[in-house]
Parts: sequence; C-alpha cells; structure tokens
Amino acid sequence: KTNAKRLNDTLQYSCQWGSTPDGGMNRLSGNDDDQKVRDWFVAEVTRYGCSHQVDAMGNIFAIRPGQNNTLPPIALGSHLDTQPTGGRYDGILGVLCALEVLRVIHEANITTYAPLAIVNWTNEEGARFSPAMLGSGVWAGEFSTEYGHSRVSSEGTTMGQELQRIGYLGSTPCSYQANPLLAHFEVHIEQGPILDVAEKPVGVVKGAQAIRWYRLAVRGREAHTGSTPMDRRSDALLAAAKMIVEVNKIATTAPLSTRGARGTIAVINSGPQSINTIAGQVTMNLDIRSPFDQDIEEIEKLCKQGFEAIGEEHGTSLEMECIWTSPATNFHPLMVECVRQSAKSIDCHHEIISGAGHDSVYTSRKVPTAMIFARCRDGISHNPAEYSRPEDCAAAGEVLLGAYLRYDEH
Amino acid sequence: KTNAKRLNDTLQYSCQWGSTPDGGMNRLSGNDDDQKVRDWFVAEVTRYGCSHQVDAMGNIFAIRPGQNNTLPPIALGSHLDTQPTGGRYDGILGVLCALEVLRVIHEANITTYAPLAIVNWTNEEGARFSPAMLGSGVWAGEFSTEYGHSRVSSEGTTMGQELQRIGYLGSTPCSYQANPLLAHFEVHIEQGPILDVAEKPVGVVKGAQAIRWYRLAVRGREAHTGSTPMDRRSDALLAAAKMIVEVNKIATTAPLSTRGARGTIAVINSGPQSINTIAGQVTMNLDIRSPFDQDIEEIEKLCKQGFEAIGEEHGTSLEMECIWTSPATNFHPLMVECVRQSAKSIDCHHEIISGAGHDSVYTSRKVPTAMIFARCRDGISHNPAEYSRPEDCAAAGEVLLGAYLRYDEH
Ligand SMILES: NC(=O)NCCC(=O)O
Ligand SMILES: NC(=O)NCCC(=O)O
Repeated sequence: KTNAKRLNDTLQYSCQWGSTPDGGMNRLSGNDDDQKVRDWFVAEVTRYGCSHQVDAMGNIFAIRPGQNNTLPPIALGSHLDTQPTGGRYDGILGVLCALEVLRVIHEANITTYAPLAIVNWTNEEGARFSPAMLGSGVWAGEFSTEYGHSRVSSEGTTMGQELQRIGYLGSTPCSYQANPLLAHFEVHIEQGPILDVAEKPVGVVKGAQAIRWYRLAVRGREAHTGSTPMDRRSDALLAAAKMIVEVNKIATTAPLSTRGARGTIAVINSGPQSINTIAGQVTMNLDIRSPFDQDIEEIEKLCKQGFEAIGEEHGTSLEMECIWTSPATNFHPLMVECVRQSAKSIDCHHEIISGAGHDSVYTSRKVPTAMIFARCRDGISHNPAEYSRPEDCAAAGEVLLGAYLRYDEH
Repeated sequence: KTNAKRLNDTLQYSCQWGSTPDGGMNRLSGNDDDQKVRDWFVAEVTRYGCSHQVDAMGNIFAIRPGQNNTLPPIALGSHLDTQPTGGRYDGILGVLCALEVLRVIHEANITTYAPLAIVNWTNEEGARFSPAMLGSGVWAGEFSTEYGHSRVSSEGTTMGQELQRIGYLGSTPCSYQANPLLAHFEVHIEQGPILDVAEKPVGVVKGAQAIRWYRLAVRGREAHTGSTPMDRRSDALLAAAKMIVEVNKIATTAPLSTRGARGTIAVINSGPQSINTIAGQVTMNLDIRSPFDQDIEEIEKLCKQGFEAIGEEHGTSLEMECIWTSPATNFHPLMVECVRQSAKSIDCHHEIISGAGHDSVYTSRKVPTAMIFARCRDGISHNPAEYSRPEDCAAAGEVLLGAYLRYDEH
C-alpha cells in the first residue's frame, strides 16, 4: 500500500521550487526552479535505489532493475514543469505518485519482473516553449530532436539553450527506439469538472481528445484614432476581436458543442501599442479541441470561413498556420483494464476521456499506455486555485500501484 | 515669401534621425533620436539669430527679439517626436514651417513688433508616455511638472529620467506664467481625409474635437483551454473582444456616428500568455472622440453600460479609469481670421475642425491660438505611408508666414 501522508507531504515539499505568493506555481520548463526540482528529483530516486539517465531533450529516466533486465522498463511518468499561473498538482502529482510507488516497492524489497522507470518528461506544458508534450513527443518520434531544441520562448531563448544552461541536456538519445520503454502509466489531475460532478475521486482514462494549435497574424493599417473616420479604417484589433468571438460561437453552437467541441484564443499581442494609433498588426494563438478528429476538421473549416468574412469586412489580411496537431487517442485496452481492475478494488472509479493532452498521448503511439485521473476541485486547473484533496491524490497513487503491479505480473 | 524647396529639403534632412526602413519614423519622445534631432534644431535656430531656453519639460523655445521685447513672443510651434510607426510629417512639418518662417524673416532682416519664438513641444504623441500633448499641457497648467516627469513608459522609464538622460531637462519653469507667450500658431498635417476629398491643399482650423482616454482592466479566471467546458469559463479575452466590438458599434451607430463620434481600442495586453490557459487578465486602452462634449459623455455612458452587460455574461470584472480628458476646443477668432486672410491670398483653403489633439489645444486655453492644416494623402497618418505633397507643405508654410505677420502687425 502507498503511504498517503508521505505522498502528499513530498508533493508539497517539491513545490518549494517555483511556488508563487498566491499558492500557485510558476515553474516554466527550463527555468531555474525547473533545474532545482530536477536536482531534488534525481537525488530522491537515487536514495531509492535507482540509476538515472538524462536524454537529449532533458527527459529524466530513473531506473530500478527487475528480474528480467533485458526487457525495457515499465515507466510511470509525468512532468514537473508548470504553467506561468499554474497549480501544485498538474503534472507534479503524476511524478510524485510514481515516486511513491518506487518508495513502496523499494521498502517492501520487491523485485518486479520488468525494470521500473520513473520518468520526468520535459516541457509538457508548452507554455514557455510551444508545442506542449515536447519531451515525450520527441521521444515518440513525433518531432526531431533538432525541432525540440529549436523551440523558442518569447524571451528569445531556445529549449536547447535552456536545457544546456540548467545542466539537463543529456547524452542519451531521445528516442523510443534507442531508449525504449515497455509501457507507460501516468497519473494526472483531471483538470476538468467531470469527476467532481460525478463525486468520484479517481478516473479511468480511456483516451484523449484531438488538439490543434494555430498561429494567427492579422494585418490591417495603422492610422490615427482621432482623425480617421470610422468607415475608412482597416483595424487589425477589431478584426481580431471578431475572430475571438467567432471561435467562441463555433465551439458553443450545436451540433459541435454537444459533441464536446472547444475553441479558445488565449494569447494576443498587438502593435504598435500606441493608444492613438489603430492597431496594424495582431498575432494570436488558437487552440481547438474535440473528442472526434472529424469535428476538429469541421471546426477548422468554420474558423477559416468566419475569419475570411471578417477579413473582407475590415480589409485585413490573415496568416493562419497550424503549429501543432495531436489526433484523438485511444489508450491500450489491456493497460486500461489494469487501471480499471485496480480502481475497482478501491471502488471509486469513473471512465473518462481526457480534455487535455498528456505525455501519455505521445507514449501511447509507441508503447501500451494508460492514465489515471485524480479529481480536481471545481475542475479548475492552469490556475493557482487548482486543488486536489490529499485523499484523492492518495487514491490515484494507490490505483497506480495496483495497475502497475498487475501489468508487471502480466 | 517662404522657400518651398528649402522647407521640404530641410524636413527630409531632419528625418534622418529616427527614420525606419519602410520610409516612416520611430522617434519616440525622449529616445536617442529625439536627442539628436533636438541638438540639430538648437544648432539651426542659433544659426538664424535665436537664443534658446529649455524648460522643465524639455520644451525648447528659440527666441528672436522684436522691437518691443517687453512683450512675450508670438510662438510658432509643434513637435518633433513621432509615433512608433509614424510618418515624416506629423508634427515635424509644423516645426519645419516655423523654422522656414524664421529663416525668411532673418534673411529679409525684418524686425517684427513682438519677439518671435519657434517652439518644439515635448511628447506631443503620447505614444511612449501617456497622455499626449504633455509638454504643452504642463506649460498650460493642465498638469503639474511632477505629473509630467512621472509619466512612465512600458519599459519602466519615466519622462523625467529620459529628459535628464538626453540632456533636455531644462531649468526654465514649464509654465505659461513664468515663461509666457503672446500667441501660438501651429502648422500640422490634417491626419484625416477632409482636405484630400475637398481637393484643398490647406485648411483653416477652427477648433479641435473632444478626447478621452481610459485604462481598462478585465479580470476573468485562468483555466485549462482543453478540459474546461465552454459554459464554465470566465474568459477575460473573450469579454475584452466583445468590448472592442461594442466600442466600434457605439461609435458607428446613429445619431452619434453622424455627429462624428469615434471610438477605438488600439492597445491590448493579456496574461498569462500561454496558449492552453484561458486568459485571466486583459488590459486595454480606450480612445473616444467627438466634436461635442455632450456626445463624449454619451459615448462613455454607452460604453459603461455595454461593458457591464458583457461582464455579467462572462463573470468578468472591470476596472475603468479615465486617464486623460481634453474638452472640445474653439480657436481664437482673430487668430483664425489671420489664418483665413493669409490662406485667401493664396486661394486654397477650407475650414475644418481637427480630429486629433494638438499642442495648440493646450496653448489655446491660455493664449490666442490658431492652426493651419496641410493636406495629407488619403488621410493616412500614424503610419509610415503618411505623405503630404511638397507643394502642400510649402502652401502651409506660406500661409503660416502670412498669418504670423498679420498678427504681429495687429
Ligand atoms: N495537461 C496539460 O495541461 N497538458 C498540456 C497540453 C494541453 O494543452 O492539453
Ligand atoms: N496629432 C496627434 O497625433 N496628436 C496626438 C494626440 C491625439 O491623439 O490626438
């Protein structure tokens, strides 16, 4: 059995690096706090009998040998990086549950069949370096290592430079072929309200919805706000505002809405940032989601149509570039069944599809993968108010232990 | 008579400091290029027989004595600072026309009745340091010198620090009382399409419309874009987008629109700038205008009502603070008559109300003031494509000379 108190205490302890005064976290990938929590993580897994490797994307694999060390390890992983206004659970809980499983197995002196790996994946959030799930994406062959290294932050630093700077640009190739895993389990907070509404502490995750991200660049014409008549303008910010409203309308209109469509513009920047000069340039990012790949196509089509009409009305031009696409994912039936059986034994589960992308989405393309969700208060995430009760965190850890041991036995 | 070629050549010469590759200007108030053009301006007026004073706001007064030097000087002024994506005429033409008048009078060895002042006002644009017309505003007692010095740029520097840094924090008090003028004439490009449509090179400006600027801060709730259902969001950027659309609707709806209302949001900034975190905070600036003070009140009221409804729909809060207000202005009848007579003699004028604010708006509160507009191609301003034909620039300079001499005689 996992130790609920130890799990929760260690989780809070690990949040000392990157915590914010409002109780949240700001541990962006590759920043100084990311370095500190990685150093702590490495020291901790070493204490519990692991060797470790750092790969070319900074992913850390802590390995505990099993009976059959010719097999790749079964991995329990998630991420220690956070959003700029993030909480103390997103990703962190997953790594800490994995660590708790390691501690239990180590203390009980169990020799598992396959080796065990505890994995911290780099830059899952995609907040500082887009796209999200970058470390696991490179590992799974979705992106090249060069692509991963070249991702650039708004400050102008690259992922590769920052990994080098914090001492986590490792020599192990970042590749599912050169550094294989046998399977991947991940605990994560739900980040949505389904378990909270259903009053279930734990979710058995059957898959994840499709995601697409775009870069949008709107061009209008700078002009004086005071002397330019309203009907002689080409206002890039007005056009952008109508696009934001349009995306919302598309995602909230049936039948797409009833099938779970989501559409959001959360990042905007305008120029030339002068109160009395009509904005001539606006850049934004669009995030669309759906459990169904065909609905993603439909949302994209409707957005393009809507944006075109807005552009015609305002004489603005638009560049629209897809910068990330992640199709709908189904996790591995046997792995999901291990999670289900483990959850049943503590009688608290609910079957669920993930609204967020996770490292498990990429690992699932190459190795059997499944996820366990912990309930998250009011469904709030990517917010300092993000909270999962200690008993829910503990339940997720317990389900992880059971699912992992079942799969290892299998 | 003014020298058209010299005026235009000198204008283009003075644009070497702060010019941009696209043919426009980026000479923000208090930056290095502002320092260079000021140094050149001081050298130039010295060559043409002027002494000069720099006041506590960096306004430069170049003085040429007259017959009666107990009188304050009649000023010909405008500004040498520009927008970040500005043109080569806005403000610059006014100072250069004044310089051309000085050259003509100096070379013709005329002794005017009152002394003559050529004035470069500081930070007319309000682009780097809000509000606009700051140097003339402090001079006219609208703002205190402390207020003027404390204005802060987005880089965090203050107006006072930057004046000190470039060597233009002068010792003359910035005050219409301590450093008086007898009157103020200003040439400026129209920055709108009226003269271009009327096919008149020069406008006799009778007044300027009312302006208000606001700071808006919208607060929502950060949440995950993928896992947060569309109906459980408090999206600050979606609310802000609807506010941008609302302002446009108010300004383009009769009867306000037919009376010349204008409303623009041109500056927006959102946080936390992460593609998959719904924006929790948005700040914007609102600029509203009308020739009628009562319409400004009405626009403000309608904006507040509209914003409130949007806030209720999205669960967002709003701070709305008026940061600048400039009532509708009527210029001095006798001064306007001097401009009219001078313009008539070259048979090219059109009576006009200014859509933009100008330093003359503030000087007019304390001393007789009038303005002359030069036609501006397609009405485009605050844009690198801003253009006034050399002959239109020359016509404005010629009208300035005639108006000034008429008033001096009077
Ligand atoms: N869990 C999480 O926030 N992942 C980031 C990728 C996404 O935006 O869904
Ligand atoms: N002329 C000019 O651009 N003035 C700035 C003040 C305003 O925004 O009207």
